[in-house]
Amino acid sequence: MAPPLGDIAHLGHVELLTPDLDGSLRFFTDYLGLTVNGRSGDSVYLRTWDDYEHHSLVLTAHQTSGLRRTALRASSEEALQRRVKELEAAGHQGRWTEDEPGLGPLYVTADPDGHEVALYWESEWYQAPDELKPGLKNQPQAKPGHGVGVRRLDHVNYLAADVAANADFHQHLLGARPTEQIQLDGGRIAAKWLTFTNKSYDVVYTEDWTGSRGRLHHIAFATDTREDILRAADLALDTGVFIETGPHKHAIQQTFFLYVYEPGGNRIELCNPLTRLVLAPDWPLITWTQAERAKGQAWGLKTIESFHTHGTPPLDPAADH
Amino acid sequence: MAPPLGDIAHLGHVELLTPDLDGSLRFFTDYLGLTVNGRSGDSVYLRTWDDYEHHSLVLTAHQTSGLRRTALRASSEEALQRRVKELEAAGHQGRWTEDEPGLGPLYVTADPDGHEVALYWESEWYQAPDELKPGLKNQPQAKPGHGVGVRRLDHVNYLAADVAANADFHQHLLGARPTEQIQLDGGRIAAKWLTFTNKSYDVVYTEDWTGSRGRLHHIAFATDTREDILRAADLALDTGVFIETGPHKHAIQQTFFLYVYEPGGNRIELCNPLTRLVLAPDWPLITWTQAERAKGQAWGLKTIESFHTHGTPPLDPAADH
Amino acid sequence: MAPPLGDIAHLGHVELLTPDLDGSLRFFTDYLGLTVNGRSGDSVYLRTWDDYEHHSLVLTAHQTSGLRRTALRASSEEALQRRVKELEAAGHQGRWTEDEPGLGPLYVTADPDGHEVALYWESEWYQAPDELKPGLKNQPQAKPGHGVGVRRLDHVNYLAADVAANADFHQHLLGARPTEQIQLDGGRIAAKWLTFTNKSYDVVYTEDWTGSRGRLHHIAFATDTREDILRAADLALDTGVFIETGPHKHAIQQTFFLYVYEPGGNRIELCNPLTRLVLAPDWPLITWTQAERAKGQAWGLKTIESFHTHGTPPLDPAADH
Amino acid sequence: MAPPLGDIAHLGHVELLTPDLDGSLRFFTDYLGLTVNGRSGDSVYLRTWDDYEHHSLVLTAHQTSGLRRTALRASSEEALQRRVKELEAAGHQGRWTEDEPGLGPLYVTADPDGHEVALYWESEWYQAPDELKPGLKNQPQAKPGHGVGVRRLDHVNYLAADVAANADFHQHLLGARPTEQIQLDGGRIAAKWLTFTNKSYDVVYTEDWTGSRGRLHHIAFATDTREDILRAADLALDTGVFIETGPHKHAIQQTFFLYVYEPGGNRIELCNPLTRLVLAPDWPLITWTQAERAKGQAWGLKTIESFHTHGTPPLDPAADH
Repeated sequence: MAPPLGDIAHLGHVELLTPDLDGSLRFFTDYLGLTVNGRSGDSVYLRTWDDYEHHSLVLTAHQTSGLRRTALRASSEEALQRRVKELEAAGHQGRWTEDEPGLGPLYVTADPDGHEVALYWESEWYQAPDELKPGLKNQPQAKPGHGVGVRRLDHVNYLAADVAANADFHQHLLGARPTEQIQLDGGRIAAKWLTFTNKSYDVVYTEDWTGSRGRLHHIAFATDTREDILRAADLALDTGVFIETGPHKHAIQQTFFLYVYEPGGNRIELCNPLTRLVLAPDWPLITWTQAERAKGQAWGLKTIESFHTHGTPPLDPAADH
Repeated sequence: MAPPLGDIAHLGHVELLTPDLDGSLRFFTDYLGLTVNGRSGDSVYLRTWDDYEHHSLVLTAHQTSGLRRTALRASSEEALQRRVKELEAAGHQGRWTEDEPGLGPLYVTADPDGHEVALYWESEWYQAPDELKPGLKNQPQAKPGHGVGVRRLDHVNYLAADVAANADFHQHLLGARPTEQIQLDGGRIAAKWLTFTNKSYDVVYTEDWTGSRGRLHHIAFATDTREDILRAADLALDTGVFIETGPHKHAIQQTFFLYVYEPGGNRIELCNPLTRLVLAPDWPLITWTQAERAKGQAWGLKTIESFHTHGTPPLDPAADH
Repeated sequence: MAPPLGDIAHLGHVELLTPDLDGSLRFFTDYLGLTVNGRSGDSVYLRTWDDYEHHSLVLTAHQTSGLRRTALRASSEEALQRRVKELEAAGHQGRWTEDEPGLGPLYVTADPDGHEVALYWESEWYQAPDELKPGLKNQPQAKPGHGVGVRRLDHVNYLAADVAANADFHQHLLGARPTEQIQLDGGRIAAKWLTFTNKSYDVVYTEDWTGSRGRLHHIAFATDTREDILRAADLALDTGVFIETGPHKHAIQQTFFLYVYEPGGNRIELCNPLTRLVLAPDWPLITWTQAERAKGQAWGLKTIESFHTHGTPPLDPAADH
Repeated sequence: MAPPLGDIAHLGHVELLTPDLDGSLRFFTDYLGLTVNGRSGDSVYLRTWDDYEHHSLVLTAHQTSGLRRTALRASSEEALQRRVKELEAAGHQGRWTEDEPGLGPLYVTADPDGHEVALYWESEWYQAPDELKPGLKNQPQAKPGHGVGVRRLDHVNYLAADVAANADFHQHLLGARPTEQIQLDGGRIAAKWLTFTNKSYDVVYTEDWTGSRGRLHHIAFATDTREDILRAADLALDTGVFIETGPHKHAIQQTFFLYVYEPGGNRIELCNPLTRLVLAPDWPLITWTQAERAKGQAWGLKTIESFHTHGTPPLDPAADH
């Protein structure tokens, strides 16, 4: 039986690894418009302007790129404990840690593919310093006047050897709802979108054709408007940020998108869902066939080849990018 | 103790009364871009293009204007029964009916101010006829090529003699979460915003200074973009739709808005929330003081006088509008 | 010596041929939002909402597709006579006709590639009937509530065997200013953009690789916003209008674009220039090399193959489309 | 007889006076996104990203606010000399100077109200340093990643005791075309809009009820989109820039606008004309009556009181602002 909906409230933040911390930091602050909110060791804590928590992203210097951790906030202390209990009953080993500023204890485990997943409840509400105070009291921080000015971390897209198994982990042990998927002619699930919220997706699994484990396809930040994404494309053009594909509209989930690479090599999506939400409690999982998927994106753009080959960390760093 | 979150999934639809059914119908179809999905007696059933249910709005010919019913969809049959049980335990009399196409039984009760509230679970998923088939399978219906093309019914703003009592009804008996409120200097709550979802509000109570009961301040439809609202203002200008105020941005909830009157006299808001959502499970109720409220809207627009006086049905129909 | 700038005021309208008049008419009215303003014989006269003249487009039933006439409005009667005199002195034969409603005499000649070009001065200002009266007196007609709602005919892109010769015709005999061009490695001009106004282009010549004469690459209509073009793409998706490529941003001229085919087979561009204008009286012709052109569009989209092969009328109607 | 159209190519730049040079400089660079391009004495030269010339704005420290100079670029050396000759024949004394970097000789005179007007032809084309190189060669400079990122100086709105006389000066001696005006019931012209280009206005005269001379109502910068202006309003809200009125749409000229005050006290408009242009060579001057003007802006916003009282320099600096 599925767990009660709602034990996981939302995607909290991710930790991204980069072999070029300075370059990545410039990308996330100057280009995306995130704000630095502390440093510790090799890590820098960054936040989007509408995040109520301490940080939305941890950038950590590393020998290569990739994703280290995805942190999910529970809906309550009880919800957190309930999830931990279910995970352990299902044989998912975890450990408790308290290694992030602004957060209480995190229960750290992993999905079947090996991506680290951390659950937590306690979280300090962010208090903006004077120079970042917003004009309205229902907003955590002033909107930055520079860069794209993304509102929030929107979703994570994981590469995984076995999409279905990892999606099941999120659905049955964390309470996510699957909303859309791609099913190949042979029956295999090539990608699956799941959500903890009324957003139509918070996490995605995409098949890693290379068979490697624990890699990242991309993380995504939401903008307020499609115009923000068009402006982001122009800023990328004028400042040398590499655009992989877009702007265009996805057929699946209908998100308006732009894909760029940050200097560390990780793929970053800028996304805008318009006002689309999944409000139906009985939303039926939508399945796209291989033929439907082959039609490309919503307005006809063909899916770019590198979308099927580029993941982080790269398999052969010398050959990539 | 508060009920578990989530028994009410979302706002389903409303029934609006109009003394000018033909005029109102033209407004909702030609101007807003809703689609007629059946008629019965004095009522016409209408739907927005992204509604998965049979209808988003019932328009009913009547001697005057106003709101007859607000229907809320439960998250499951169990959730529905749980809410009914709690309502009855709290002394709220209700009755079961099955008077709407595409829906199963509705439990009809009322908020303390006398606004009819109906709860239901069973709902047929809409199947578009060929001429309204969408280009993408994750969308219920083609987006209309005419009018504003609103995506969904977004929220209801009720006038009520006692805002706090009615908000409590939604919070404690229906499981809504309050997100923002206005508190007058004397302590009275002048308006309160509540939500069943990750949207920052689904229902609002605004103080009715006239002391009358059961009236409507406005219903709102969400557009995909702020540009849709600017275009809507131009269409209103060229077709004679009465604009009360806007476009502008609310300080409270930060919604981009345009208020118009439909020919029956009911106030209709076109609203765009950008990508703002309330994801925090521990969102603290934000209180705006009388002085803060007096500052007007986000960018400085003063709140228009009629905003405090016009409600439907009008108290003195001859004097209104 | 170049003629004085300004004898030609602006692009007036074009006559488009279609083997499917009914289908084309539905496209231009229902989808683009043009208004029918009279019929005559096999022709229907259509206008965009911000055109001050009788028509922006003539649609004529024909055995095949293509462009019959481009009409340019002179700045005055004297300017018209001056252009006719210069054309005739340069050996361009022409004839006077008065075959279009709302217009005085047209001097009809042709560019070197054989595209019919008509010059005129007298033009009746459009008076909207009551049902199309705009809300503001500085606008000729109400903005349509349906379809894309394009503001004006923006430019014509001709296919031509010899781009340079045809551009010279426009520059030296009609007074157009060249603003941008593509020069192939061998020195040949593959495309050239020219303007009569502060718009950065009104006419374009593109090399026709097939060696055929007098064909059309596309005509373009300007929208008010990029959002209008994104909405147009969604309407195309939901109503079955064929999208060839876009939305994206051109590197040359920086126009935001969407290319669709109308049912008669002619390529139609929806374009938005933002607020870009060429105000400099000494604007230097900008030359893009073959290598620069090969980089694709502004944000990296590769130029679609059919862009180099599809023109109207098709060379082999059976094979095309 | 009117001079030939086109001797004045476009508005070049203005010199603005400010009692708070540091504050004003921060406003124009941090908030509007202009780039500093040199300093000289008490003046700083600033440019918008799409200006091909050396500067779009000169900011000069002064004891009070206001406008010192408006510079108009001629279409050629001959055009410049022709204008000077006509001005002198009409009794308008002028002097030649060469006091601005990047420009050749300027002929400095004044309109009847005493506003300094300078005409020039020679102008060096701007070459961006490496760090400001744009991504596309048809653009002078990279679009700034911070602030509003206005594209160009759009127009100047002068206060004047006698609107008609000053408009006549622009029309008959400089070759501007009047496009719209407000005529009071008594027959007096209260405001008049004129253009040198296909833009619907470049200069505006508004009646100064105080009877003082040579004052400024506002200068305006054009953005690419209406969304840029909505974003600008949000940035103003979060950074404390004073919003006087807007965003909204003007009835006259239909411009989408936002009015703010820069720290020196001068009113600055951010404006977006969409794609509206005046292409008709025989555009009839549109006259708005006092009653039409009283209706307010396009979507119903009432004209703000300070719009009729605030000009720079202020008459009584102590009382203003």
